[in-house]
Amino acid sequence: MVVSPKPLGEASIARVPIALGPRSYDIVIGAGLLGQPQHWPELAGAQTAVVVSNPTVAAYHADALTASLKQRYARCLRVDIADGEQHKNWASIDAITSLMLRMACDRRTTLFALGGGVVGDVTGFAAACYMRGVPLVQVPTTLLAQVDSSVGGKTGINHALGKNMIGAFHQPMAVVCDLDTLNTLPEREYRSGLAEVIKYGVIADSEFLVWLEANMPALLRRDRRALTHAVRRSCELKAAVVASDERETGLRATLNLGHTFAHAIEAEMGYGAWLHGEAVACGMVLASSLSVSLGLVSQAFAQRVKSLIVQVGLPVVPPTMSWAQWASWMRVDKKADAGVIQYVVIDAPGRASVRAVPDALVATVIADASGG
Amino acid sequence: MVVSPKPLGEASIARVPIALGPRSYDIVIGAGLLGQPQHWPELAGAQTAVVVSNPTVAAYHADALTASLKQRYARCLRVDIADGEQHKNWASIDAITSLMLRMACDRRTTLFALGGGVVGDVTGFAAACYMRGVPLVQVPTTLLAQVDSSVGGKTGINHALGKNMIGAFHQPMAVVCDLDTLNTLPEREYRSGLAEVIKYGVIADSEFLVWLEANMPALLRRDRRALTHAVRRSCELKAAVVASDERETGLRATLNLGHTFAHAIEAEMGYGAWLHGEAVACGMVLASSLSVSLGLVSQAFAQRVKSLIVQVGLPVVPPTMSWAQWASWMRVDKKADAGVIQYVVIDAPGRASVRAVPDALVATVIADASGG
Repeated sequence: MVVSPKPLGEASIARVPIALGPRSYDIVIGAGLLGQPQHWPELAGAQTAVVVSNPTVAAYHADALTASLKQRYARCLRVDIADGEQHKNWASIDAITSLMLRMACDRRTTLFALGGGVVGDVTGFAAACYMRGVPLVQVPTTLLAQVDSSVGGKTGINHALGKNMIGAFHQPMAVVCDLDTLNTLPEREYRSGLAEVIKYGVIADSEFLVWLEANMPALLRRDRRALTHAVRRSCELKAAVVASDERETGLRATLNLGHTFAHAIEAEMGYGAWLHGEAVACGMVLASSLSVSLGLVSQAFAQRVKSLIVQVGLPVVPPTMSWAQWASWMRVDKKADAGVIQYVVIDAPGRASVRAVPDALVATVIADASGG
Repeated sequence: MVVSPKPLGEASIARVPIALGPRSYDIVIGAGLLGQPQHWPELAGAQTAVVVSNPTVAAYHADALTASLKQRYARCLRVDIADGEQHKNWASIDAITSLMLRMACDRRTTLFALGGGVVGDVTGFAAACYMRGVPLVQVPTTLLAQVDSSVGGKTGINHALGKNMIGAFHQPMAVVCDLDTLNTLPEREYRSGLAEVIKYGVIADSEFLVWLEANMPALLRRDRRALTHAVRRSCELKAAVVASDERETGLRATLNLGHTFAHAIEAEMGYGAWLHGEAVACGMVLASSLSVSLGLVSQAFAQRVKSLIVQVGLPVVPPTMSWAQWASWMRVDKKADAGVIQYVVIDAPGRASVRAVPDALVATVIADASGG
């Protein structure tokens, strides 16, 4: 894929247009955006805004957001869902929709998802389902959500038998990434988000990978200028993939590099034991090794990926699980086709694809990584 | 709206194309279709079919359908949800998706909704949500579902605070209306379905209304030839509306003639006490009177509508409810705009629109109907 990077200027307000025909929207990236509604995309006429967050994030940022929204909406409601992956479930959807029905919210009511991936996915699914669909604005407050889960229109909840198994595609009318919200992010969560940033370099832009290798120290100290570029470039790369394949029939699936392994790790260990980015980081190491085994990329390239992940302090050794355990979780992956597990592999630096791989080869790669 | 009726031939297999661009599909209408898969539209390649039904319908028709599906799918699973409007809830969605996850169903798995409106709406929503969307075939076995709920892509479940408040638009890849399934339909349910048939004449085709007045005795004895025409013409009229307004922003809302009142009746009386078609019939009488009050149609026209409904044996007198009760239910109607109730009114025989109406006028119409 060829996506021209825009020149890297001073940290200011960047816009990444997501071209999806009638469902097109902008990602706005900048510092202090929560308090600057004039920089937000125009929102459709609506009486009511509903801000969905969780208690942790709301304590930091809900007042700023609601103050801005009150300049535009006659009524601004708030509802918090419980924090944590285990609350990415129907009870949280019910909490949101019950409030909306009690408050007679109509189908023009706009939902604002203020938080990380869980808040974004749950609020997005509530927006997709409430009266069969109401407008949604994503206001991601974690690095992971800013570069990943807020872009692309995927929404959903977990099922006891699998993560993200119930959901909908529901594009937001805008995504507002306030970089200031990252200041309050715990270190472990911040580093977890860098896993997805690295992913974009690996699957879609080898020059960005080189930039990451040069700028990782700046990113680790949350340098504003480096962060602006990393978030913008990640969003641009994801946007290009999503625009070319909104419904994930082909190219878009490559965004799941490492995720087949990661979902198994998260499911087996219990959601939340490993952060998503940690599991993805480890999954990317496995996917890189698998790609080496298939003769697609060099050992040296796989080592570059692994080194970046080690530099960020993310895990590279998977938890101890039998092949049967791995396989049982990976078979319920959404990419599976008629029960055959599909893996994202790296075809070359900056290029990836999806394919089936013999079980024995995958099992060997996992065993090698686990033993090492 | 102008939709040319096709010539009425002998009862055979009719196809009504639904033009929705990439989501286009056919409604196939005929007798004995469950056992004749060769007449079904081509289905996408998939390993697994899942037939969702309820115990009552399954006892009559599931064997015929699964026998046909086994000619096309390597695996044919079955799951029943409990019968009745009160089971149009998340527990039923969970029953379907849990089976699918346990059986490792992938995102190509095709869901078949074999039953009436509840089975169709629940199965449709499960298909919309499972892995963010899998293919769906509607196999409606009630008259109401054949002429209404299986066409248009609306799916969903009820919320404790309102009917059909949670759902999705998810177009089926085909709708198969086997007229033979209507033979096993209880008389009360059959007559309830005729309410929606009458509705199409009232809102979209005054010639069809004349045809219904002439052929109601034949329809009431379930004459095959009359039934074929009534189902086909209803589907054609609904298809024309849906094709012009897939997401219900304007014209499509007119399909809800009588439904604002009907939802209040159903909610107040407890879902299932009145059949949906019974509530719609009574709601259409109220909507007709409202249209007379607004000076849109003549008293004579309203009387024609009422006479047809009486002929079918459907209720024309609403249950006793205060205006406050009516209003509280009607305000959560999905058509409501910023808390203002929107009503479908008849502009002329065969033409309808949506508008706000002063509360006092509506209250008077309801009081007159209740007292009469």
